[in-house]
Amino acid sequence: MSNKPSIPKGTRDFSPIEMARRNYIFDTIKNVYKKYGFQQIETPAMENLKTLVGTGGEESDKLIFKILNSGDYLSKADEKAIADKNSTGLTRSIAEKALRYDLTVPFARYVVQNQNDITFPFRRFQIQPVWRADRPQKGRYREFYQCDADIIGSDSLLNEVDLIKIIDDVFSELFQGKLKYTVSINNRKILAGIVESIGEQDKFEQIVVAIDKFDKIDAIGVVQELKKLNISDSGIFTLSEILLSKESSTGLFTIEELFNKNKEELKSLNSRINSVNGQKGIEELEFVFDKLKQLGIKTANIKFDPTLARGLGYYTGTIIEVKIDNFPSITGGGRYDDLTGKFGLKDVSGVGISFGADRIYDVLLDNDLYPEFKGDSTQVLFINFGKAEQNYCLPLLFQLRDNGINSEIYPNAAKMKKQMTFANNKGIKYVVLVGSNEMESGKLTVKNMESGEQENLTIEELINKVK
Amino acid sequence: MSNKPSIPKGTRDFSPIEMARRNYIFDTIKNVYKKYGFQQIETPAMENLKTLVGTGGEESDKLIFKILNSGDYLSKADEKAIADKNSTGLTRSIAEKALRYDLTVPFARYVVQNQNDITFPFRRFQIQPVWRADRPQKGRYREFYQCDADIIGSDSLLNEVDLIKIIDDVFSELFQGKLKYTVSINNRKILAGIVESIGEQDKFEQIVVAIDKFDKIDAIGVVQELKKLNISDSGIFTLSEILLSKESSTGLFTIEELFNKNKEELKSLNSRINSVNGQKGIEELEFVFDKLKQLGIKTANIKFDPTLARGLGYYTGTIIEVKIDNFPSITGGGRYDDLTGKFGLKDVSGVGISFGADRIYDVLLDNDLYPEFKGDSTQVLFINFGKAEQNYCLPLLFQLRDNGINSEIYPNAAKMKKQMTFANNKGIKYVVLVGSNEMESGKLTVKNMESGEQENLTIEELINKVK
Repeated sequence: MSNKPSIPKGTRDFSPIEMARRNYIFDTIKNVYKKYGFQQIETPAMENLKTLVGTGGEESDKLIFKILNSGDYLSKADEKAIADKNSTGLTRSIAEKALRYDLTVPFARYVVQNQNDITFPFRRFQIQPVWRADRPQKGRYREFYQCDADIIGSDSLLNEVDLIKIIDDVFSELFQGKLKYTVSINNRKILAGIVESIGEQDKFEQIVVAIDKFDKIDAIGVVQELKKLNISDSGIFTLSEILLSKESSTGLFTIEELFNKNKEELKSLNSRINSVNGQKGIEELEFVFDKLKQLGIKTANIKFDPTLARGLGYYTGTIIEVKIDNFPSITGGGRYDDLTGKFGLKDVSGVGISFGADRIYDVLLDNDLYPEFKGDSTQVLFINFGKAEQNYCLPLLFQLRDNGINSEIYPNAAKMKKQMTFANNKGIKYVVLVGSNEMESGKLTVKNMESGEQENLTIEELINKVK
Repeated sequence: MSNKPSIPKGTRDFSPIEMARRNYIFDTIKNVYKKYGFQQIETPAMENLKTLVGTGGEESDKLIFKILNSGDYLSKADEKAIADKNSTGLTRSIAEKALRYDLTVPFARYVVQNQNDITFPFRRFQIQPVWRADRPQKGRYREFYQCDADIIGSDSLLNEVDLIKIIDDVFSELFQGKLKYTVSINNRKILAGIVESIGEQDKFEQIVVAIDKFDKIDAIGVVQELKKLNISDSGIFTLSEILLSKESSTGLFTIEELFNKNKEELKSLNSRINSVNGQKGIEELEFVFDKLKQLGIKTANIKFDPTLARGLGYYTGTIIEVKIDNFPSITGGGRYDDLTGKFGLKDVSGVGISFGADRIYDVLLDNDLYPEFKGDSTQVLFINFGKAEQNYCLPLLFQLRDNGINSEIYPNAAKMKKQMTFANNKGIKYVVLVGSNEMESGKLTVKNMESGEQENLTIEELINKVK
């Protein structure tokens, strides 16, 4: 056994201060979700491997952590795969279970399995860790939390409106208006319509992949990618016009101006797209923007972005992504029309978002946006001067605790300096010093560790002071 | 892909109402932990396999879920183990990581790894799931939550006092004085002393195993087990005297009587045990009982139980176990003197407890002890009568939400009956009906779904009513 313990690459421990910050983010998101009528569920960390594979493509399957069967797993192992040294082939015969890769697939599985007990439309939220056998790097972990909310069993666009308002509520609270962020919105049907109107439906996926790179390689780069796909010059012209319209919309606008701009762009797009599908997408977005304009927005920068694609996932309608300058997406989501089909429940439409807690954590830290977490940790420490003083202090300590004040007594009569250092390191604000004078008078000497001030207080006065 | 999705044996989904109940238990425990100065940490679900194995013996190692290495794991597999069909032998070469089996070992690893950043004595709590490849059965799961608190880096018995007071606080709150429970306390040194004083130190472990069965096989059964170990008649006589003293102490006592009884029993034991170790254990327990008597107990039934052993784990001092009639242990813990030694940090004493959330869940459910969780779910639903009404209701809906009231509008103009059923199923208390009359007068028709009463209220009146 090595003497230097460590944890697996890409995983993390969370210290008390990190936990306080994380809980602050989770609680903020949770409270907003609840205000919108979402209910919490949890699913097990382990799912049957067959539930998870084949949902996100072969590349995703490789990122799934598999759990070795218990007991004598070799007795049921695939002999041929062993002989062929075929790791992928062997896995299914020795690993029936796996760690969930996201919260969406387990949710779809949950909905199908519990469909008779669920009241639809079902607004659920779920805040749990997920695991991915990704290459660890800065900001990318093998264990991280997702904070998902989905509405399943309703195709009403009011759901989209709610989700965007939730994003606005959460970041208005977390960023306190001190940080600009953009909520980019698009609709998969518009992307489909654009591709249809240039007659390249067959290349939809490749075109989307190219457009999706816009943020990394700019408009000219995207045009070059499109040329490689053998798309006609007029097709590329139409596509590049759309890409350029995106570039021109960067800047500072009032919310009113933004919504007018979004509307204009949708209109101009409408005149250029000759596709029923595309028109539908434009109408859907117009409805969402109109409602948001009616209801008002607190701090979000809402922007129509015809180049937003969000990969090749399961989205079929609205797509949403939240970004801060020079930072990867901190929240994303969209509408999917057939998430539960894989598990035998067809034609159930859903829409959802997912807050990336780890990235939000970093953004708040970088921008010094965390509140103080005083009440979370110990508020009062009794210094321990010895047996008699300890006996005097113990009932007072419990009086504080019974009044809801987090408090401790140093567990033995260590040197004064050691005890004060302990208070300092733990960020304890009040230190109570009780010697023979204090025991006689019943007045405690209370030191404020932040200001250095000392006062003589009765226990009742101390309780009122801390509260 | 099967059309009937399921989850792995021994794991569970948690529905919204189950989550509300679980969160209630976790929050109660968490708040008490904080009052006593404990700080939260979290560790990753996955640890390096070598961190986990060999801590709880070979039987425990079998219960650890191992995670298959990613990629082409067969390329580094132990060829001989494959040829020998030796599953156990192969595991180490194809699985470097594993799911944690408890929270204690990861905590010990955390302390050693972060020893330079930790202020000792360190009071940490941790509420996370653990995984065991146990045979699933009623009340025993493969994924379940532990709620641990430990104080590490202090051998003061005040820590024991705090932990027992925490148990009293938590169950006083959860059981509301309506359920009797017993906190049994012993000290490993007393067990050692008893065994020493009959001259059978060599058989300590076997004797403890036999005594540990007392609850299952009664005193006579234990005596038979001891005879099998070839213990002298006088030794068995001394041991059985102790076992019988336990039987006699069952009954109803005031707390004062209980503490006197505990003290008497300790005294009588003291006169019978001829062992420095045993005397030390008795003194330690006397200190703990004296302090508890001084500070008072809310609802716990505190009992000295010389037969309490809690398996053959790492405990070296005080041992604690909480039980309800006819139910397995719901909380347990104790002092250990060398938990971090395995990771290279010697002589660090700690003491901790662990609440068994799943069993507590069942106890509260069986005894109907959960509060109502009204505020947790949606409080107000706006019925959707169509476009005009929807537009009228939307700003009112957001006014409620901005006032912290959980509310929804039904997302489309479905049949009235469907919408009312939705409100009923989701347990929503207030339903708001807005038609042309209401839009004209500005007074909303509000139906209380519990009483059936209907009122006409302005939005401000509704906000005040719900708050």
